[in-house]
Amino acid sequence: METKKPADSQVIMTELVLPNDTNTFGNLMGGRLMYWMDICAALSAMKHCGSPVVTASVDNISFEAPIKLGNVVHIEAKISRAFNTSMEVHIRVWGEDVLHQYKYKSNRAYFTFVALDPHGKPRPVPSMTPESEEEQKLFDGALRRRQVRLILGGKMKPGDATELKALFNIQ
Amino acid sequence: METKKPADSQVIMTELVLPNDTNTFGNLMGGRLMYWMDICAALSAMKHCGSPVVTASVDNISFEAPIKLGNVVHIEAKISRAFNTSMEVHIRVWGEDVLHQYKYKSNRAYFTFVALDPHGKPRPVPSMTPESEEEQKLFDGALRRRQVRLILGGKMKPGDATELKALFNIQ
Amino acid sequence: METKKPADSQVIMTELVLPNDTNTFGNLMGGRLMYWMDICAALSAMKHCGSPVVTASVDNISFEAPIKLGNVVHIEAKISRAFNTSMEVHIRVWGEDVLHQYKYKSNRAYFTFVALDPHGKPRPVPSMTPESEEEQKLFDGALRRRQVRLILGGKMKPGDATELKALFNIQ
Amino acid sequence: METKKPADSQVIMTELVLPNDTNTFGNLMGGRLMYWMDICAALSAMKHCGSPVVTASVDNISFEAPIKLGNVVHIEAKISRAFNTSMEVHIRVWGEDVLHQYKYKSNRAYFTFVALDPHGKPRPVPSMTPESEEEQKLFDGALRRRQVRLILGGKMKPGDATELKALFNIQ
Amino acid sequence: METKKPADSQVIMTELVLPNDTNTFGNLMGGRLMYWMDICAALSAMKHCGSPVVTASVDNISFEAPIKLGNVVHIEAKISRAFNTSMEVHIRVWGEDVLHQYKYKSNRAYFTFVALDPHGKPRPVPSMTPESEEEQKLFDGALRRRQVRLILGGKMKPGDATELKALFNIQ
Amino acid sequence: METKKPADSQVIMTELVLPNDTNTFGNLMGGRLMYWMDICAALSAMKHCGSPVVTASVDNISFEAPIKLGNVVHIEAKISRAFNTSMEVHIRVWGEDVLHQYKYKSNRAYFTFVALDPHGKPRPVPSMTPESEEEQKLFDGALRRRQVRLILGGKMKPGDATELKALFNIQ
Repeated sequence: METKKPADSQVIMTELVLPNDTNTFGNLMGGRLMYWMDICAALSAMKHCGSPVVTASVDNISFEAPIKLGNVVHIEAKISRAFNTSMEVHIRVWGEDVLHQYKYKSNRAYFTFVALDPHGKPRPVPSMTPESEEEQKLFDGALRRRQVRLILGGKMKPGDATELKALFNIQ
Repeated sequence: METKKPADSQVIMTELVLPNDTNTFGNLMGGRLMYWMDICAALSAMKHCGSPVVTASVDNISFEAPIKLGNVVHIEAKISRAFNTSMEVHIRVWGEDVLHQYKYKSNRAYFTFVALDPHGKPRPVPSMTPESEEEQKLFDGALRRRQVRLILGGKMKPGDATELKALFNIQ
Repeated sequence: METKKPADSQVIMTELVLPNDTNTFGNLMGGRLMYWMDICAALSAMKHCGSPVVTASVDNISFEAPIKLGNVVHIEAKISRAFNTSMEVHIRVWGEDVLHQYKYKSNRAYFTFVALDPHGKPRPVPSMTPESEEEQKLFDGALRRRQVRLILGGKMKPGDATELKALFNIQ
Repeated sequence: METKKPADSQVIMTELVLPNDTNTFGNLMGGRLMYWMDICAALSAMKHCGSPVVTASVDNISFEAPIKLGNVVHIEAKISRAFNTSMEVHIRVWGEDVLHQYKYKSNRAYFTFVALDPHGKPRPVPSMTPESEEEQKLFDGALRRRQVRLILGGKMKPGDATELKALFNIQ
Repeated sequence: METKKPADSQVIMTELVLPNDTNTFGNLMGGRLMYWMDICAALSAMKHCGSPVVTASVDNISFEAPIKLGNVVHIEAKISRAFNTSMEVHIRVWGEDVLHQYKYKSNRAYFTFVALDPHGKPRPVPSMTPESEEEQKLFDGALRRRQVRLILGGKMKPGDATELKALFNIQ
Repeated sequence: METKKPADSQVIMTELVLPNDTNTFGNLMGGRLMYWMDICAALSAMKHCGSPVVTASVDNISFEAPIKLGNVVHIEAKISRAFNTSMEVHIRVWGEDVLHQYKYKSNRAYFTFVALDPHGKPRPVPSMTPESEEEQKLFDGALRRRQVRLILGGKMKPGDATELKALFNIQ
């Protein structure tokens, strides 16, 4: 099976924050943003593997700057690493006040999707080779995030988490 | 400031999966579920602190069983731990096929919210004291999840993550 | 066929009033609330009979206190009486200003649903036996509401409405 | 204050049944229809009184024929009677299969609205004089429906319900 | 195949402008209005031909007066001319401030639809004969608009556009 | 006032076709697409002029290939010409079947927006200078489309439409 580049799976979404998307502060509600991120990330994963996908897990969404009513939401998704039958997607979000030509970082997140065959069973996905330095960093971090996920989910023993142990400089 | 119990912040939501909520497999899309989880969790955090809140981070949503079109979604949110100005909310989700009287676990997640004063600045929240054994376990885990969040976000050095080090049996 | 308790069919919904749900006074529009009530009541009826159901009639929705933008809507539905192939569902609605920890009665209503077999024809439903005093009162009133419905719909002669005649003390 | 005719308050709505409006049988959900009926009826009441209005009660919605996915919903609302500060609106609904040029009665209902002054308090509305025979019948029935509403809501004693007593031939 | 009158295809829609339909000026967004116009016009075309239809082109929507939040949108669609397998629909839109009993012209447009057979291929539609003077004018203009469409779309040579040449008094 | 390039106003949107966006053939409804096109085009015009804008007119939307349920919609908008207080935006739309890695042209359109000052009055916009050959062609055509618009709207005499006369080789 061929290997692919992160750029092959890039998806860009642009949305406008409407009244019904906001909380009482007039800021975009977190849940509405996650709705868009999930669609953007799922499309990215589908571009990588050419199969339908389902969301398997969501980690580390951090909300930095709120996006205001009437502002624009820019979402960019790209595969950060492909595993056997799953893919981690890295998502970055910016807000933009178009009238003041002012664009600002809003948040980032990692979503994991599983590729499915026509019977709804997991199927292998193409491997992915990072190109830029930043892509390499995201690729390396993906293993660490996966171990955190497995340990916290009770599916891996801390002693087997080689990547995490390295983080703590444990031999 | 008074201390509160987890039960004080319990919120229960029930939703029906409609056609527009589903993917091509006829299952509830992850993003739509996160939209509901965010509202349910925010209401729970607001019940705890009596202030408006904003989503600060989302960790470890794991999607176990898909929820089908026409099935019912049950969401239950409860504070798992209160920090200075933030609260971790524990969310559990079940699907239910009402016609077959069959209810199944779908997923769980942790959302963190920050309480805001009228100027939009973080404000202190009441402390929270767990009661049941399960609540105590969630309360303890909250510190661990917080350290993972801070380390992966580059805001804490691994050496300072005492809770995580304990996990790896490091002195 | 077994008999069931009102508690078996209890369904609780929680919704947040968003901008698009409100009228020019910033209050929840009646139609939006009825949309949620219908889903909540239909789920309750389905829990009682284990079959798909369709709305047959709606009676006596009275709107007492308006629910404000940003407040929470609590809806509770429970079967009040089962007839041959239909069920009357009693629905109560509260608003809640979560920030001020203030919960208030908003309205109540009775919806009637018919259970359907796979060909879309009415099918028998389990009987229902009230337990508490309040449930007994709702159970008794259901017959009266049914006769009002039939008379006003031209399907029953006033002289045959024994329950209503009792209300007027007619022999 | 002037008197008005039913025709002055006529409002006609046309909607298309989309996938998200339907239940598992592919028929329009009752709650979605009530959402449209409430808007149509509120507009009719506003045309009559020239003030903002709020839904006060809903009575006797009977669902006769289901409306299918892709069919058209025709809603017609007209004031049936004006009281002091409230108006009863009569609503009729038809479905139409445009491809087969087939139009069918679906249901009818009575909604009651209260007119509000700028402080949100009830304000007097113009009187209404029926013209056609059918309008006269609806006008007469309005009093009867109002008494049923008041008795069932515990706001009127059966002995004072002169209109209803007439229905049962009681002196 | 029979011929039809414009009145046979008349469709009237009434919608209320809700918060999520508006831009930052509190006016109805153009795109939301086009969404309603398309449904109204498609229904009109379907009434004329009794077949499913698809939007083929949209021309000359001019937005004259904005419609405010809380106002009512009136849309009226009627066939202006039938061609072989396509129909031009003329749409007029008014806004109405119901409280001030003030109705104003908002915009007009021409949509063209193609009738489809069950295999999704274009099929012939009944001819249409205008009755009033205004309908005759719209009927005549339809040919001109069609030629503009074809020329600008590169599907007709200016020299063949007899209707347009007449407009410029060219022999 | 500075001059700008078409690239300065480029906006890219990506949307997923969900069940409620489709007609009975399972294809994206024209009106839903126009809703997205209007938002994408308005954002493009706002990027050009840095002011709020309103839709002034829509011309020549031609629907070529339908976009299927579950496919992706790609919308790209860019200013084609700036006039005194208005801007013509050129919009191109592609569909994409992500699973089959197949992307196809769906339609194109021209929307015109007017820039508004804080009192809602038209205000001057920066000029725009095309760069590529294709941009020059769109720039030239914009004048022709404007004259068609003005003539068909009765705001210009055919004899004054110098651009259109040139199209017919009239001196």
